[in-house]
Amino acid sequence: MQLEEILRQIKPLDEKVQAAVRARQDNLIKPVGSLGKLEDLSVQLAGITGDTATRFSKKAIVVMCADNGVYDEGVSPAPQAVTLMLTRNFQKGITGVGVLSKLSRSDLVVVDIGINSDARSEHFLDRKIRKGTHNLAQRPAMSRQEALRAIDIGFDEVRKLHENGYTVVGTGEMGLGNTTTSSLVLMALTGCSVEEATGKGAGLTEEAFLHKKEVVRKAFERHRPAAADPVGILEKVGGFDIAGLVGVYLGAACFRLPVVIDGFISAAAALLAFRLSEKTRDFMIPSHASEEPGCAIAMKQLGLSPYFRLDMRLGEGSGCPFTFLLIDAAQAILNDMATFEEVAMDNSKKTAK
Amino acid sequence: MQLEEILRQIKPLDEKVQAAVRARQDNLIKPVGSLGKLEDLSVQLAGITGDTATRFSKKAIVVMCADNGVYDEGVSPAPQAVTLMLTRNFQKGITGVGVLSKLSRSDLVVVDIGINSDARSEHFLDRKIRKGTHNLAQRPAMSRQEALRAIDIGFDEVRKLHENGYTVVGTGEMGLGNTTTSSLVLMALTGCSVEEATGKGAGLTEEAFLHKKEVVRKAFERHRPAAADPVGILEKVGGFDIAGLVGVYLGAACFRLPVVIDGFISAAAALLAFRLSEKTRDFMIPSHASEEPGCAIAMKQLGLSPYFRLDMRLGEGSGCPFTFLLIDAAQAILNDMATFEEVAMDNSKKTAK
Repeated sequence: MQLEEILRQIKPLDEKVQAAVRARQDNLIKPVGSLGKLEDLSVQLAGITGDTATRFSKKAIVVMCADNGVYDEGVSPAPQAVTLMLTRNFQKGITGVGVLSKLSRSDLVVVDIGINSDARSEHFLDRKIRKGTHNLAQRPAMSRQEALRAIDIGFDEVRKLHENGYTVVGTGEMGLGNTTTSSLVLMALTGCSVEEATGKGAGLTEEAFLHKKEVVRKAFERHRPAAADPVGILEKVGGFDIAGLVGVYLGAACFRLPVVIDGFISAAAALLAFRLSEKTRDFMIPSHASEEPGCAIAMKQLGLSPYFRLDMRLGEGSGCPFTFLLIDAAQAILNDMATFEEVAMDNSKKTAK
Repeated sequence: MQLEEILRQIKPLDEKVQAAVRARQDNLIKPVGSLGKLEDLSVQLAGITGDTATRFSKKAIVVMCADNGVYDEGVSPAPQAVTLMLTRNFQKGITGVGVLSKLSRSDLVVVDIGINSDARSEHFLDRKIRKGTHNLAQRPAMSRQEALRAIDIGFDEVRKLHENGYTVVGTGEMGLGNTTTSSLVLMALTGCSVEEATGKGAGLTEEAFLHKKEVVRKAFERHRPAAADPVGILEKVGGFDIAGLVGVYLGAACFRLPVVIDGFISAAAALLAFRLSEKTRDFMIPSHASEEPGCAIAMKQLGLSPYFRLDMRLGEGSGCPFTFLLIDAAQAILNDMATFEEVAMDNSKKTAK
């Protein structure tokens, strides 16, 4: 679908049903507001679905996997083949997100949107745009057309999930070099500094970290991406994984599904989607506070505050499963807790017997 | 059991098995340390149980329910009958902790350790010491013997759980006025001020909040409980619920079960247990950062940092179920994720075919 058409289709939350949920929360057998963010979450969920009784039982994490040309600059400590190796193994339940998604009874949709390999597998979908982006240290990472295509792929995966009865979506990614691209996206969108935007990713030595920051600094000076043009940012300094995730956020807003933000890369994509349409933010649900410093900046810009502090920095979508469980909890509280009135009626019935 | 005998039985964590778990975590297919506190938690759990393969499938939250004489001073906005009303309803799955424990497939052990009522029910255990403590604004809340008896009741409930195959325990409480007693306990243990220790509990007006602080200030001046005597603190300004929870922490350390701290009251009890024996801390697992200001002070003294920020202030044990799920996750990561070596072997086998 055309990007402009997608953006037109995003409607605001249902305020009427939200007011009804807030009123019920205030009458449940607990001090008003004492379940804090769980109460707020139930209000948000109702606003998204327009319904109070949705059970978010069919859950999926869309994991966008791609390589980044900037890997050649030495910004990551691991061999590039790790992107493919992990992508192959997500569905087998032996990686971080694999183990955690099983625990939360959620499915993984693993998408090869640009891995640097010809390998195919039953364990991931082939939606490859190209075998990795260009090296953004030398030229734009992708064409504008490729950026739009990657967004459309993400959108399309959410459309399919929606058609198949999924009611909540999480975001994940895999791709060596993608904290570098995310730092550049963040700098372009917020004007923050290299120091603020850049972290040690998967774990760099001090020396390699200094080098990574130098790569980021030079690339930013070369491209000077304009904050007002999110698609242009993807084109110049983005990655196929990030662009695909932008499409996931847009799809979630269009099909009215709550969508969980994982870590830094996922948050950078969320901020791009927010800049394309501020309404998308209302469909986003934070998860954990990543150890990558840029994540907090992105979350602040989005006005969202993470639920968990687990010092995680794995990516893959590994923050989503816990948040899925919070979503279940928020819904269960709304639907299964009694009101003071219901308990009083129950007691008076017993006395009457 | 005698308190001195209990304290003697607490042994430190198993460092050998902890080192083995750390080594395995460092070899799993993820950047070293990238699962942050989940990795640390798996190390702690192994140190507690002495085993790496424990599945924490049988979970229980011990909810200590009691009334407090200080209620008469007007420190709570709700009728005192609410203590009994909620206690009756925990097991029906319609209160906050009832809903959340169901979601995490955990059981509730609801203990009447001092509710101001003669009511009995199949929904809670009768371990009543007395129908509520004395009003600590006028005299010590309980005798030293009662404090020790309440500790023993908590210890005993954990002993029974251990005998019945439970592998993890959570702490919960119900009792109007118990943020007031917890504030006094905290002041006695840490020397913090009334302002630092006192919050709005279930929700007080500004005027009632000022009054509550005045009650706390006067009671503290009257009793001047000594930090070095945790049992004396319970005697003078504690509650049966808090004393019972101290016993739960001691029991968990004795029977080597991880024990989850819920909110403020639960944290005050944890700090009392820690002061009785510092080793108990190694068995404690934090959950959420309560909105009650004293909770953060207690957690800091314990050197523990909460996993969740949900702005909750309900009590009942409502923070435990999520932490139970984190425990499951930490164990699943340790046992179900593959090492880099295992994945490489798996790939080479496939190539050989």
